[in-house]
Amino acid sequence: MKKPAVSAILFFYTMSNSTHSASIALDRKSPVPLYLQISNQLKDHILRGDIFVGKRLPSTRKLAQSLGLDRSTVLLAYSELYSDGLIAAHVGKGTVVVDASEVEKESFQAPASMRWDDFFASSNNSAFDTTIQKNNDWIHQKEIISLAGGDPAPDMVPAREIERIVTRLCRTDIYSLLRASSCQGLPPLREMLATDMIRGGSAVSPEEIVITAGSVQALSLLSRVLLDPGDVVVVEKPTFYGALQIFRAAQARIVDVPVDAEGMRIDALERILKVHKPKFVYTMPAFQNPSGAVLSLERKKALLNLAYRHQFGIIEEDPVSRLFFDREPAPSLKSLDKSAAVIHVSSISKTLFPGFRIGWIICTRLMAKRLATVRQYEDIHSNTLGQHVLLEFLRDGLYDRHLERIRSLLVRRRDAMIAALAEHCAPALSWNTPAGGFYIWCRLKSGLRSNEVVEELLHKKVATIPGTAFFVRPEEGADRLRLCYSYESEDKMRLGIRLLGQIARGLTARKKGKPDVREIDIKAIV
Amino acid sequence: MKKPAVSAILFFYTMSNSTHSASIALDRKSPVPLYLQISNQLKDHILRGDIFVGKRLPSTRKLAQSLGLDRSTVLLAYSELYSDGLIAAHVGKGTVVVDASEVEKESFQAPASMRWDDFFASSNNSAFDTTIQKNNDWIHQKEIISLAGGDPAPDMVPAREIERIVTRLCRTDIYSLLRASSCQGLPPLREMLATDMIRGGSAVSPEEIVITAGSVQALSLLSRVLLDPGDVVVVEKPTFYGALQIFRAAQARIVDVPVDAEGMRIDALERILKVHKPKFVYTMPAFQNPSGAVLSLERKKALLNLAYRHQFGIIEEDPVSRLFFDREPAPSLKSLDKSAAVIHVSSISKTLFPGFRIGWIICTRLMAKRLATVRQYEDIHSNTLGQHVLLEFLRDGLYDRHLERIRSLLVRRRDAMIAALAEHCAPALSWNTPAGGFYIWCRLKSGLRSNEVVEELLHKKVATIPGTAFFVRPEEGADRLRLCYSYESEDKMRLGIRLLGQIARGLTARKKGKPDVREIDIKAIV
Repeated sequence: MKKPAVSAILFFYTMSNSTHSASIALDRKSPVPLYLQISNQLKDHILRGDIFVGKRLPSTRKLAQSLGLDRSTVLLAYSELYSDGLIAAHVGKGTVVVDASEVEKESFQAPASMRWDDFFASSNNSAFDTTIQKNNDWIHQKEIISLAGGDPAPDMVPAREIERIVTRLCRTDIYSLLRASSCQGLPPLREMLATDMIRGGSAVSPEEIVITAGSVQALSLLSRVLLDPGDVVVVEKPTFYGALQIFRAAQARIVDVPVDAEGMRIDALERILKVHKPKFVYTMPAFQNPSGAVLSLERKKALLNLAYRHQFGIIEEDPVSRLFFDREPAPSLKSLDKSAAVIHVSSISKTLFPGFRIGWIICTRLMAKRLATVRQYEDIHSNTLGQHVLLEFLRDGLYDRHLERIRSLLVRRRDAMIAALAEHCAPALSWNTPAGGFYIWCRLKSGLRSNEVVEELLHKKVATIPGTAFFVRPEEGADRLRLCYSYESEDKMRLGIRLLGQIARGLTARKKGKPDVREIDIKAIV
Repeated sequence: MKKPAVSAILFFYTMSNSTHSASIALDRKSPVPLYLQISNQLKDHILRGDIFVGKRLPSTRKLAQSLGLDRSTVLLAYSELYSDGLIAAHVGKGTVVVDASEVEKESFQAPASMRWDDFFASSNNSAFDTTIQKNNDWIHQKEIISLAGGDPAPDMVPAREIERIVTRLCRTDIYSLLRASSCQGLPPLREMLATDMIRGGSAVSPEEIVITAGSVQALSLLSRVLLDPGDVVVVEKPTFYGALQIFRAAQARIVDVPVDAEGMRIDALERILKVHKPKFVYTMPAFQNPSGAVLSLERKKALLNLAYRHQFGIIEEDPVSRLFFDREPAPSLKSLDKSAAVIHVSSISKTLFPGFRIGWIICTRLMAKRLATVRQYEDIHSNTLGQHVLLEFLRDGLYDRHLERIRSLLVRRRDAMIAALAEHCAPALSWNTPAGGFYIWCRLKSGLRSNEVVEELLHKKVATIPGTAFFVRPEEGADRLRLCYSYESEDKMRLGIRLLGQIARGLTARKKGKPDVREIDIKAIV
């Protein structure tokens, strides 16, 4: 049986010799957490003077009982009032309402709160984008349709297999899962990944592998090891916003090279090399994020030759090369490399699931040692349980079959999104048809602005990523939009695209001075 | 039934028209991994010319079969040979031995390997200590007695409770455990920790909490947010080597303040403040690592007053305040703070287990937002499963009882180590008797050098941390040694201490020119 949507309590207080009551009403269906509902209403009472200075609040236990809540919820509510300086705890007196201006004067001199914002380092002032945070919050808001972050949908995750492995591991030797482990990564997992890479063509030793907390940490550790402020880094245009943020935080000088259907334009890179001496080129050769481009074999060879001639490194990020729909992309740069110029970065976040935060770097032994040293003062090591679970998944030989299954799920989703785009968004948008991976890269027509479209769409509870996030100079992505088809059900995806079409038409019409009449209310449909 | 300790295969080759054989012998009991045994023997054969250039090696499948091994082991062995340029794979020809000088000449020009060491950033040149790495490797080497890193012993970990929780969570909603989650940390876990802190005395909102991958990451994120190169940081003398490494990597100017039995010397800090304007003071007030000192209530108030007057922050690291043996330490700085000057850092690595990498920061909302932003480009978020497991452990109300249990285990171990020290190490060493936590802080007498003792002891397979690791100027710790009593069984701990005593006496005698006769062989005892 469900608890009622609204519960209420009264408590009494005396003012000017007459008795009043202050009540709290809870709405269990509201998106506002219960503790905030309580603290907000108490604040109102206090600020209105319903509950005056010196008045004792009911004990958390009593209030919790009256409201039919856990005590912890009331504790949280009271903590909000403490934070705001509206109440204080006094031994023998309980929790009382105080004059906010009096709060600070207790056992020692306490000035106004520290002005921490004066303390913030200026070094990473240019890395304030919050796209990743927002992505990760959107997928937990049920009312939002997320076409934003690249998360695998529930049906893509091998839940039963993982459950079986976790249960088995817990039964066999749970202490091994909970204890500290190697900074460089669990040795048997590194051996397993080394084997796996050989199968893919290149020769790798476990000593050349570092397990990381996902590929973002891989790039972050590599930046720590390789970049001093002012060092030149070459990226693709467009490129993954997370990488841009990492290189910005490292205060690198970021130079970009355009991408076309065959991937990074090597002729453009060659011209850049006449002027710049980069430490490394960062590339995602297979189903590039966001463009979907696949770097051709010819260009891969040309890129390697440039690296050898000009002596720069290549960071090859490869999260999705095995998520192809037609044919496997050309061999990885790592497997073609004859001279240890390529650092290979990958993870299980796209192919299995992102929650364990597991990725890896393949590099020289020397660099692996340096990365493990830096890892000591970043977070010491990747969570041990997750590494064991991945090891067992690979050992059990489940990975290839799993990849086959999700490839077929992904291609269906891609087709559904393309069909929806064709139905609802032409001709206001144009788009590519990616041959693998998670994303469709759109162009907005008729002067539509990416940020405007994304914002209006978010009001309709559909999340997408504006093109501006993918460029060194954001304005270059003003007519671009990235859509992700991996996460939502086909129904929700279609609805999201329909709303996108509606907004694009509406904005276009407004720009031309005429209103759009086809309004859709998401609540009526979801 | 066990596999035989040695297996062997032969394969045949022809040289100068006569047939020879090359064999591989495996020792399954050797500490050298099987793949290395294979690759080393193959290398020998190749370098001796037993297997000549152009010769085709058996397929990995065939060799694996002959040796009775998994194919992956042979793949790893071959990968070593690839790496060394001794073999190459050719379509239609299989794996053949090549002239190492010829390897590079394939489809494109390939110069010698990239000289990556020329590329390393100079920014973190001063953070090359590898103590943490070594600690984490030692505990996985069965032959080593580790009195080094602060790891909970198997009997301290609540294995059955965790198993029950993990199994329950997997059954209920496994997808939730595997998916991406909030950069700031799982909201219900933050609410739970906020409640827990209120119980401890301070008022905290979930918005003021950031979940981290352990307290090392907490300090690392705070450094990113707060420190520009050259900023002043005050630390205790001695202090945790991990913190020193983090502040060194941030290129901070590190100033130290001595610690006595009541913790940080506030009078000394006051003198420093006449010269320096620190961004923050880093302190571990409860059972300080390594000294075991507990900052008194008087000094806590004095420290806060200084922070308010001089406007600096305080980072309070508190991993073990609840692991007290007699009485609980004075309230945390955080709970005494009236002005948001204190940033509180804690974790479950000491009280529960370190393998999940979970800790947290309590700070202002503004700073929590900033930290979550930085987290996006460090590793995005803490592993989701670990956060859920901790949440359930706290929700089930298991934490307090667990703490009680491990307090009694720890105090017994402390007593055992103290007894062993008294028996075997007086008068060459003196030591404190900590009232909580994991460590004993020793002084070496008669001119014994810490690094020398630690090195000799490691030859006897006993790991400890030299005092030098805990000081801004390492030489100040030359007569100091940290011992950890949390990890090894009482028997092994006693043996380790006995060996320490023996080495101390031996070194003292050598210094005085006379040999020590009481030699102990660890293998005869363990």
